Amino acid sequence: MNKLQLFTLAGSLAVAAPALAQQTAEKVDQAAIAKIKDEGLNRSKVMETAFYLTDVCGPRLAGSDGLKRAYDWTKNRLTQDGLVNAKLEPWGDFGRGWDIEKSYVAMTAPYYHTMIGAPKAWTPSTNGNVKKQVVYVKATTEADLDKYKGQLRDKIVVTEVATPPKEGFEPDAKRYTDEELSKMAAATATPARPAATTSDADRMATYRARMALRTKMSDMLMAEGAAAVLSTRGGSQGTFFTSNGAPYAADAKPVLPEIEMSPEDQLRIIRLVEAGIPVEVEMETKTRFQSQDLKGYNVIAEIPGTDKKLKSEIVMLGGHLDSWHAATGATDNAAGCAVMMEAVRILKASNLKPRRTIRIALWSAEEEGLFGSKNYVKNHFADPATMKLLPEHEKLSAYFNLDNGGGKIRGIYQQSNEAVAPIFTAWLAPFADLGATTVTPRNTGGTDHLSFDGVGLPGFQFIQDPLDYGTRTHHTNQDTYDRLIPEDLKQASVVVASFVYHAAMRDQKLPRKPLPTATAKAQ
Amino acid sequence: MNKLQLFTLAGSLAVAAPALAQQTAEKVDQAAIAKIKDEGLNRSKVMETAFYLTDVCGPRLAGSDGLKRAYDWTKNRLTQDGLVNAKLEPWGDFGRGWDIEKSYVAMTAPYYHTMIGAPKAWTPSTNGNVKKQVVYVKATTEADLDKYKGQLRDKIVVTEVATPPKEGFEPDAKRYTDEELSKMAAATATPARPAATTSDADRMATYRARMALRTKMSDMLMAEGAAAVLSTRGGSQGTFFTSNGAPYAADAKPVLPEIEMSPEDQLRIIRLVEAGIPVEVEMETKTRFQSQDLKGYNVIAEIPGTDKKLKSEIVMLGGHLDSWHAATGATDNAAGCAVMMEAVRILKASNLKPRRTIRIALWSAEEEGLFGSKNYVKNHFADPATMKLLPEHEKLSAYFNLDNGGGKIRGIYQQSNEAVAPIFTAWLAPFADLGATTVTPRNTGGTDHLSFDGVGLPGFQFIQDPLDYGTRTHHTNQDTYDRLIPEDLKQASVVVASFVYHAAMRDQKLPRKPLPTATAKAQ
Repeated sequence: MNKLQLFTLAGSLAVAAPALAQQTAEKVDQAAIAKIKDEGLNRSKVMETAFYLTDVCGPRLAGSDGLKRAYDWTKNRLTQDGLVNAKLEPWGDFGRGWDIEKSYVAMTAPYYHTMIGAPKAWTPSTNGNVKKQVVYVKATTEADLDKYKGQLRDKIVVTEVATPPKEGFEPDAKRYTDEELSKMAAATATPARPAATTSDADRMATYRARMALRTKMSDMLMAEGAAAVLSTRGGSQGTFFTSNGAPYAADAKPVLPEIEMSPEDQLRIIRLVEAGIPVEVEMETKTRFQSQDLKGYNVIAEIPGTDKKLKSEIVMLGGHLDSWHAATGATDNAAGCAVMMEAVRILKASNLKPRRTIRIALWSAEEEGLFGSKNYVKNHFADPATMKLLPEHEKLSAYFNLDNGGGKIRGIYQQSNEAVAPIFTAWLAPFADLGATTVTPRNTGGTDHLSFDGVGLPGFQFIQDPLDYGTRTHHTNQDTYDRLIPEDLKQASVVVASFVYHAAMRDQKLPRKPLPTATAKAQ
Repeated sequence: MNKLQLFTLAGSLAVAAPALAQQTAEKVDQAAIAKIKDEGLNRSKVMETAFYLTDVCGPRLAGSDGLKRAYDWTKNRLTQDGLVNAKLEPWGDFGRGWDIEKSYVAMTAPYYHTMIGAPKAWTPSTNGNVKKQVVYVKATTEADLDKYKGQLRDKIVVTEVATPPKEGFEPDAKRYTDEELSKMAAATATPARPAATTSDADRMATYRARMALRTKMSDMLMAEGAAAVLSTRGGSQGTFFTSNGAPYAADAKPVLPEIEMSPEDQLRIIRLVEAGIPVEVEMETKTRFQSQDLKGYNVIAEIPGTDKKLKSEIVMLGGHLDSWHAATGATDNAAGCAVMMEAVRILKASNLKPRRTIRIALWSAEEEGLFGSKNYVKNHFADPATMKLLPEHEKLSAYFNLDNGGGKIRGIYQQSNEAVAPIFTAWLAPFADLGATTVTPRNTGGTDHLSFDGVGLPGFQFIQDPLDYGTRTHHTNQDTYDRLIPEDLKQASVVVASFVYHAAMRDQKLPRKPLPTATAKAQ
C-alpha cells in the first residue's frame, strides 16, 4: 500500500447510499467452496510462497535485484502450479534500479554506539567509511536554513525528529471488532475522489511546504558540501519507517548519502548536540545503481477459461511484488502476492474449471505511485486521461486486490458500486465461519485496484484485519516473514479463490459503475 | 534488576500473615511533604539527571568507561547538590572492564541485509571484518553437538532461537490496575528464601543443563576453530535482549567473538539455511578489555544528620549505576539512580534538616549478582555467611531501593516485615493523590535491597508500574532515555524523598525482622 491512501482516507466525504433493491438470488457453488477450503486450509503452500518472496528474494524495491529475483521466481512457480502464459510483461519506463551493498552507522563520540538505520532509497554511497562531526539542522523555514550556511562543510547533518517514539500502552496489533465491522457494513459510500475540504487544502499546503523545504535543504546541504545526512520518518523500539519518494529517475539530480534512522538513535544525537556535547558519527553506505534496463515489468499468468463463449472474458486478481528496501516487504505486499498465488494454485489443485479466464498480475513500482497497475490498465483497458476504451475494456469482469497487510479477510469494499452488494454478500456467506462477513459500501484507496476503478472497471480491495500494519510493518525495517500469521493467509487464500472462481463462473460479468469522464481524470 | 528475580518470584510460597495489632499513630510531617512536593513536582531535575546518566555517560557495564564516567559525574553532581562526603568507595575486586569500539553484522548472501545486534558482553574482537559461511548449530544434547564436528572451521555459527518474536496483540506497556493493587495489599507475605518446590528443582535442573550445554558448545566451537557466533535471547521488532553472565574474571577462559541478535534477523538466517540456501555473514566486532583496575566501586554521599543523638544513625537509599551494554540502561537503572539523586536534591533544596544522616549509595555490578551492594553490606554491616555484626549494623534504620524500571511508585513491599505496615501506610497516605497507595506484605527480589535483608537489616523496594520493562527495556538494546516518562520519575522522587525524610526524623529506627542465622546464609 502506498502513501496516497492517507489523503484519500483522511479526506473522504460521506454521501448517502440509496437502499438496495432486492435482487434475484446469487448462485453460490457450495461443492466448489468445499474443495477450495479443503485444499487451502489443509494443504496450504501460502507460507512457503511467502518464505520465497521474503527471505529468499529479499527486499524488492522497484528496479532492484530482489525484485528481479521475485519476477523470475513467481513466473516459474506460477508455471509449476499449472498456470499458462506466465510472462514478465513490460509496462513502460520506470527508472534506475538500486541495491544496498553496505550499510553501517554508529556514533563514535562521546562514546561508541551502533545505530539502527538503512540508506534512504536511491541515495548514493558515502566516500568509504566516513567519520565526521555532527551538526543538527533544525529548520522549519528557509530563513532557518540560512543560519547554517558556512557550518556544514564535511559535516554529517542530522535533521529533526517529527514523530517521537510511542510509549506502548496500546497494542501494536489489533483485529477488527464486531462493532467496527457492523459500522463498516452500515456505512455510506464515500466518493473515490472527494471534493477538497478546507482541511484537505491546509494539509496539502503543509505537505507541499514541507516538501519544498526538504528540496531546498537538500540543495543547500549539497551546495555547502555536507558529507551525509541522518534523518528519520519515525518508528519506535528498533522499528523505523523508510521513506517514500526518491530520485529514481535516470536524470535525477544528485543528492547526499542519507541514512534513515531509528528515531531513538537520532534523538540521542540531537539531545547531546543540544546540550553542547560534540557528537561524531561514522557511517558507510555502498549503494549500486543499475541503468541497463530502465523498464518496469508485471508478472502475468493465466488459468484459461473453459466456456467457449466466456473464455475471452477475464477475471483478474493481484498484489504488488515490489516493496520498500529496509526489510523484505512481508506484509507490504508479499502477503498479498502469496495469497493471490495460493488462490490460483488452489483453483488448479482443486481441478476447478472456470468458465472465464482467470489472470493473476503481480505488479511492480506500486510504492512509487501504482505504476505497474496504472500502466497495465492504460496498455490493456483505457487511459484515464482520454477514456478512449481499448477492446479488452469490455472483457474484464473484475479485478480483486489484496494489499492491506497480512491480516485475514473480514469482508470487502464495494468501492461505491451499489450493484455488487448482493453478489458479494452471497459470495461471503460461506466464509462467515472464517470471520469474513462484511460488505461495506465504502471506498478504500492506496493500492492497485484504484488503477482499474479509475477507468470504470470493477476493482476491489478486501477488508483485512489491521494487525500491526500501521505500527510495525508498513514501510518499516520490520516488515519481515516473522510478522505473517499462517492462519490469516490461509483464510485469505480460500476467500479470494472462491471470489475469483465465482466471478469466473457467473453468467454475467460483475456490474459496473458509470464510466468516469476523461476530463475528470486528466492530469 | 538482575536475573535472580525470576527464580525468587516464581518460587515464592504464600504464608499466612498474622493480623496486625493496632499501633499508635505514626507521625507524618505535612509541611515537609508540601515542600517536597513543591520542589519535586515544580522544579524537578530528575530528567536532567537521567539524561546525563544515559545519553551522556552512555552504557554502564560493570567496569566499563561508561560506568567510570557515571562514577565521576554522580559524585560531582551530588556534591553540587549540597551533599557531603561524596566518594567512590571500593568494594572489592570485580574483574575486567570491557567496552565496545565497533559492532557491525550483516548478511551478505543470498543478498545484503544489515542486521541488528551487539557483541555479547566480555566477548573478544573478531579478526577484523570477517566474511564467512554460516552453519546453523541446533543442539539440545551433547550428542547433537557431536554431529557438527569437522564442519565448523572458519564458519560463523548461528544458534537456535528459543523465544520467537511476539505478535503484538497485548500492549507493551501497562500500569497496575486498582484491582491488581488491591490484591497485592491483601496478599500474604512470602518468605525471602522459599523452600524449594519440585517445579523449582525442575526449573533449576533445566537451567543448569542448558548452561552446561552452552559451556560444552562454547568449548567445542573454540576447539573446532569456528570464527564467531550469532545468538539471541529474544525480543521483537528491533528490540533484542542482551545476555547475563559472561567471563569478566581476569582469568576467564577464552571464548569466540559473539553477537547477540535481533531474533528476526537470526530467524531469517535459520530459515534460509534450513531451506538449503547458503548464507554468508560479514561481521566486525572490536572490543577492549581493561585490567588496570579490577576493583568495583560504589558512589556514596551524605546529608549529615542534625540531631546530636541520632546523627550517627543512618537512613540509606540507592539504585545501581551499572547497566547492560547494548543501550544506556535508562530503566535499568538510571531511572532508579536519577530518582534517588533527585530525592536527596529535593531534601537539600527544601532546606529540610533530617535528624539522622541520610546516605545515598549508587551501586555497581548489580547486574552480575548485586556485587556492589552485597560487598558494601559485608564491609559495613555484616557478612551473611558468619552473621558477625559490625558496629554500623545497629546504626542503620532502613535502606530504600528503586530498581523495577521507570514506572511511578504505586506503593511498597514490606519484605515480610509485619511491623513496618502501619508506618508505611501512614507515610504513603499523603501520596494517594499521586497514585501511591499500596503496602503489600509481599517480598520482592532481584535487586539490591536483598543485600540488606540478607543480614537482617530493613531493606525495601517500592512497587512500581511495570510500563514496558518486561517487553522492551529490561536488558535490551532499547533501554534508552526515550523510555522514561518524566511525570513518573517526578512522582517517584517525591515519594522517596518523603519516605527517607520520615525515616530520618522518626524517634525510633524502623523495626527489624529477627536476625537470620549464619548457617542459613552460608554459601
